[in-house]
Amino acid sequence: MNTYPDSILKLIQSLSTLPGIGRKTAERLALHILHAPLHEARTLAADILELKEKVKLCRNCFALSDGDKCRICANPNRDSKIICVVENPADMVAIEKAGVFKGHYHILGGALSPMDGIGPDEIRLKELFKRVHAQKKSHKKENCAEKKAEKEACVNEVIIATGTDVEGESTASYIYQNLKDYNITVSRIASGVPMGGDLQYVDQVTMQRAMEGRHGF
Amino acid sequence: MNTYPDSILKLIQSLSTLPGIGRKTAERLALHILHAPLHEARTLAADILELKEKVKLCRNCFALSDGDKCRICANPNRDSKIICVVENPADMVAIEKAGVFKGHYHILGGALSPMDGIGPDEIRLKELFKRVHAQKKSHKKENCAEKKAEKEACVNEVIIATGTDVEGESTASYIYQNLKDYNITVSRIASGVPMGGDLQYVDQVTMQRAMEGRHGF
Repeated sequence: MNTYPDSILKLIQSLSTLPGIGRKTAERLALHILHAPLHEARTLAADILELKEKVKLCRNCFALSDGDKCRICANPNRDSKIICVVENPADMVAIEKAGVFKGHYHILGGALSPMDGIGPDEIRLKELFKRVHAQKKSHKKENCAEKKAEKEACVNEVIIATGTDVEGESTASYIYQNLKDYNITVSRIASGVPMGGDLQYVDQVTMQRAMEGRHGF
Repeated sequence: MNTYPDSILKLIQSLSTLPGIGRKTAERLALHILHAPLHEARTLAADILELKEKVKLCRNCFALSDGDKCRICANPNRDSKIICVVENPADMVAIEKAGVFKGHYHILGGALSPMDGIGPDEIRLKELFKRVHAQKKSHKKENCAEKKAEKEACVNEVIIATGTDVEGESTASYIYQNLKDYNITVSRIASGVPMGGDLQYVDQVTMQRAMEGRHGF
C-alpha cells in the first residue's frame, strides 16, 4: 500500500478513523478530494475547523448551539412549559423532523448504565431536576398562575423520550421516580409496532407493548 | 432540518458532496467530528489541505506523486523496460496490491469514449507513444542492446491493463493498433472467471472469454 504518495496515505489514514469509513471508502474519498476543485477541499477543511471552534452546548437544554442559547430555546414560539427529555442531540433532531413537538428539550448526554460506570451524576439529570425544581418551589410560595413572569417559566409537562433499550428504560424510570411528586405531568413516548412495518417481523417485546398500549378508535 | 447550528449544517453540506456520503452519513460523520478530540479534527483538516497542495503527477508515468517522480519511477529495482498501461491511479494501486508486476506504469487518465467527447487527445496516449517511440528511433540508428545507457531506457513490453468495459477494450485496441509495428511485445491482461468465484454467477461474456482463453495444465 505504499503506492500512493505520503500526503494521500495520511489523508486515507485520517478518514479511516471516521465511523463507517473503511480503508476502501477512505481511499475513494481521498481520490475524490484530490480531483475536486481546490475551493471545495478548502471549504471542507474550514468547515471541520469551524465546527470544532464554534459549536457549544445551549446553557438551558444542552443542545448543540452556535451561541449561548440554541435555536429552540431562543424561539419565542416554542412552549417552554413542556420539556422533552432525550439522550442525545441526534434523538432531538429525529423528534424535530416529525414536526409534532413544539416545546423545549433537555439533552441528557447519555443514559444510565451502571455496567459502563454511568450513574445519575454522569448524565445531566441534576440539571433536569433543577429546571423542574425551580417551578416546584414557586408553587409552594404562591400560585404559579398568578404571576405572569413566573408562569412563563413553569414546567407543566415532562415527556421522557429516552431510548427503548434497557439503559433508556431505566433512565426513564429513574426520572419518573424523581419527578412523580412534582405537580406536573410526566409521560413516556408510546412504544408499539412501527408505522408501515410488517407485523410478522415485529419482535416479541414490541408486540407485547403494542398489545398493552392498545386504544379505541 | 434547521435544528442543528449553522456550523454543523455547513459541515454536513460539505460532507454530503463526497461520493457515497448521503445526508444521513454526513450527519453521523459531522457529529463524530464534533465529539472527537480537537487534534483529530485539526489533523483531518490539515491532511485535506496538504493533499491538494502537495500531490502532483509523476512527469514520467503520470502517477500521483509528492515529487517530480513517483516512487515506482524513482525505484531503481523496478524494470523500466516493461510498461503497464492503466486508466487511472486506483487501477495501478490494484495491480500493485497483487504484487506480481515489477515494471513501470503509464496512467492514461481515462479511456477513449467518443460518446463523452473523450478522444485520443483527451487522454495521455501521445505521451505513451512518445515513451515507446524514443526507443523505436534508437533502434533504427543502432542496436539498442549495444549501448548500456540507451538499453536502460528501452521499452520491450507494453502490457495493456485498461478496463474490460467497452471504453477500456477500445482503448486497448487503439493502443495495440498504434504499437503493433514497433519492435516490442504488446500484451493484454487475461480475462476470465474471477478466482474464488462461483461459476453460476459469471456473466456470459466473461464465460466466453474464459473458454476462449483456456490453457493446458
